[in-house]
Amino acid sequence: MSHDLADNADHLDKLHGALERDAVDQIRRLLNQTMVPAEVAHALESTPPREREFLWQQIDTETQGEILLYLSEELQTEFLERMSAQDLLTATENLDTDDLADLLQRLPTYSIQQVLDSMEAQERHRVETVLSYPEDTAGGLMDIDSITIRPNITLDVVLRYIRRHDELPHSTDALWVVTRSDVLVGRLYLNELLVSDPGMTVREVMDTEFTRLDAMTPEDEVAQLFERHDLISAPVVNEQGQLLGRITIDDVVDVIRDTAEHTVMSMAGLDEEEDTFAPALRTSRRRAVWLGINLLTAFLASSVIGMFEGTIQKITALAVLMPIVASMGGIAGSQTLTVLIRGIALGHVKGNNIRWLISRELVVGLLNGALWAVVVGLLALVWFDDRMLGIIIALAIIINLVVASLVGTLLPVVLKKLKIDPALSGSVILTTVTDVVGFLSFLGLASLVYLS
Amino acid sequence: MSHDLADNADHLDKLHGALERDAVDQIRRLLNQTMVPAEVAHALESTPPREREFLWQQIDTETQGEILLYLSEELQTEFLERMSAQDLLTATENLDTDDLADLLQRLPTYSIQQVLDSMEAQERHRVETVLSYPEDTAGGLMDIDSITIRPNITLDVVLRYIRRHDELPHSTDALWVVTRSDVLVGRLYLNELLVSDPGMTVREVMDTEFTRLDAMTPEDEVAQLFERHDLISAPVVNEQGQLLGRITIDDVVDVIRDTAEHTVMSMAGLDEEEDTFAPALRTSRRRAVWLGINLLTAFLASSVIGMFEGTIQKITALAVLMPIVASMGGIAGSQTLTVLIRGIALGHVKGNNIRWLISRELVVGLLNGALWAVVVGLLALVWFDDRMLGIIIALAIIINLVVASLVGTLLPVVLKKLKIDPALSGSVILTTVTDVVGFLSFLGLASLVYLS
Repeated sequence: MSHDLADNADHLDKLHGALERDAVDQIRRLLNQTMVPAEVAHALESTPPREREFLWQQIDTETQGEILLYLSEELQTEFLERMSAQDLLTATENLDTDDLADLLQRLPTYSIQQVLDSMEAQERHRVETVLSYPEDTAGGLMDIDSITIRPNITLDVVLRYIRRHDELPHSTDALWVVTRSDVLVGRLYLNELLVSDPGMTVREVMDTEFTRLDAMTPEDEVAQLFERHDLISAPVVNEQGQLLGRITIDDVVDVIRDTAEHTVMSMAGLDEEEDTFAPALRTSRRRAVWLGINLLTAFLASSVIGMFEGTIQKITALAVLMPIVASMGGIAGSQTLTVLIRGIALGHVKGNNIRWLISRELVVGLLNGALWAVVVGLLALVWFDDRMLGIIIALAIIINLVVASLVGTLLPVVLKKLKIDPALSGSVILTTVTDVVGFLSFLGLASLVYLS
Repeated sequence: MSHDLADNADHLDKLHGALERDAVDQIRRLLNQTMVPAEVAHALESTPPREREFLWQQIDTETQGEILLYLSEELQTEFLERMSAQDLLTATENLDTDDLADLLQRLPTYSIQQVLDSMEAQERHRVETVLSYPEDTAGGLMDIDSITIRPNITLDVVLRYIRRHDELPHSTDALWVVTRSDVLVGRLYLNELLVSDPGMTVREVMDTEFTRLDAMTPEDEVAQLFERHDLISAPVVNEQGQLLGRITIDDVVDVIRDTAEHTVMSMAGLDEEEDTFAPALRTSRRRAVWLGINLLTAFLASSVIGMFEGTIQKITALAVLMPIVASMGGIAGSQTLTVLIRGIALGHVKGNNIRWLISRELVVGLLNGALWAVVVGLLALVWFDDRMLGIIIALAIIINLVVASLVGTLLPVVLKKLKIDPALSGSVILTTVTDVVGFLSFLGLASLVYLS
């Protein structure tokens, strides 16, 4: 059997068909034999709560552990919380150290201890090592099952040593060369090993120019490094240069995917681990917070309008046109903000080029402000047959677009410095500013002109 | 020398220092010897236009090719367009087939032909094969340099065959087992090769259950597959099952990064390949288009308000409160939209669960609508001491939040069916709807009450 793309869609269709027909035997066969764990996880994530619960119960406990690895954190927690201690042990028995450590972090402290207690001393020690580092660092990502060799042996000995293994740890593209005191001195690529003369020593063939990761390196820097050097695996070392473990590309791909999703979801006040099929009540409660925050900013904008009720009563056209000024500022600002958030995430934006960006954005704000000021001014003039109104809205648009450019550039930089996530709070703050400035400049200018 | 994280920041600092001191020799040394191509590309992407141009001129032509690979499409095009035919040949001489094909796609047709003409027949044939597939398919991503073996030989023979190579193609984790007519029948992992008895035949050890990609598979499906099966490389075959080439994880990481960035940037009407340091004029021109589209929708919303000028003149409090109704709808809708866009991208949202999602979102819209209707209603009542106004705004908020949930759910599904990118046009259409419905329901209800 080969895993084609068509297979996955096919399996899902079969599964949904079987669900509709209540064909429990076929469901169990699909989940436990036909589909690979990642496919089962994907099926669970694509299924509403009630059927999802039923599917989960049909999965053999031994394979539940591996399936959990591919689920979002929200679903991991949901399933793990309801598993008995015994099932938990059965499910996690065959997992890699780093994967097990990942799952354990979703459990309450007493359950973690239960799982650890049940393990052999050596394995427990390994898992505890990984658990001792924060989840979003190189130490928290690393896997401890790697093969180490000494520098002074010949490749022939290495080849014979490898053959004593039944299999190599997953994604092994290199062996780590360490001294007696475990200090990492080199890296022997399997490719090198295969093409070199077996009589040579490891020292002669090994690579010494490669990336060593400190255990406390943040995961996004790990990802940048893998991307920059096209790595398959990288070693993690402690301050003494001793090998602690290795990180493999599959874990890094997850980090890249999560980081990218984080930006998209944060901008709407959502969490990247959020379950697409979370129940209505849980979903409402979460989103309510974001709506509440936005309500505060909306009232702030309204209170600005409130200051000019008298002017609006005299010239109702102001009420008709004012959303245009606010909206144009919001769009221009969010474009600048998005470019800056991405630039910061990619490491393009730094202290020494921020001034260039500010002046570029100011020029862009002025140019687009001027362009759309003329267009909107003329349209307003035609619509309400009031030349003054056209001039006022044109000025307000230029002011708001320039302010939007400035705030859109500086805001993410300042938030980043304050260690606040710009993707999460940036757009709320920005639209508050562009709304307030938009209404204030338009209605304020109008009051000066019409009420004087 | 080892490549530590600190090194990269260090190199960049040194480079900027040298730029300030005009130390051309040091700049050349840093760019051509100390830094790896990905670092140089990153430095170029982090530098404003004038210094960037200067840096580019200091890079040796032979290494420019590899640096181009790591640049965004916008910068690739910019530099490639200004290279002479001779420089182009020198720069691209040592590139892999897939990388070369990637770059060639940025060139005008006559330049592509010039490069192809200069190549040897075999190499030209390979590049032409890759060029014959669209850039965003498995065929366009694939690399042609892979090692193939026959099923009936022993591992010992394979080992000796490999040792005849100076090095294996990058990211080689497996050899491809093909028949005489090039049909792919198996995959021999290097790890398997190393741990197995050399007397066994390839057929006995090879894996036959693995993913074969059709050359026309879209790149996002390729990425999903790599993620799902934790692959390092995957073979690309034609309709007859013959091996065409292989895709490696480093190319897939780029696809994942680009796809994720595409969503973030599209939502602000930007392109993911956009240069962070594009000049002001080019930037203004691009963003003007998006502002223009949004202006149309803003005028649409304004014209709705214009229908109720009479009511507003009588009750100016309506003008003060109306942005709140529109804004709450916009936020609620964009949350739903974001969840759906992500759900579709991850393959969670399908025909059979869309109905569940619609009803979930409707319930969420109703619950949050009711909650915030009460809050806003009471605040309006207190602010303007008008009980009717409180009831009107409460009703308008419920209406707008329910409509927002419905449109936020259906819009991306419909756009996807129409093959329109929901990330690009979704939010514009959505806010148009929530603005129009917000103003219409609030001002319409008020007109019914106050003008009757």
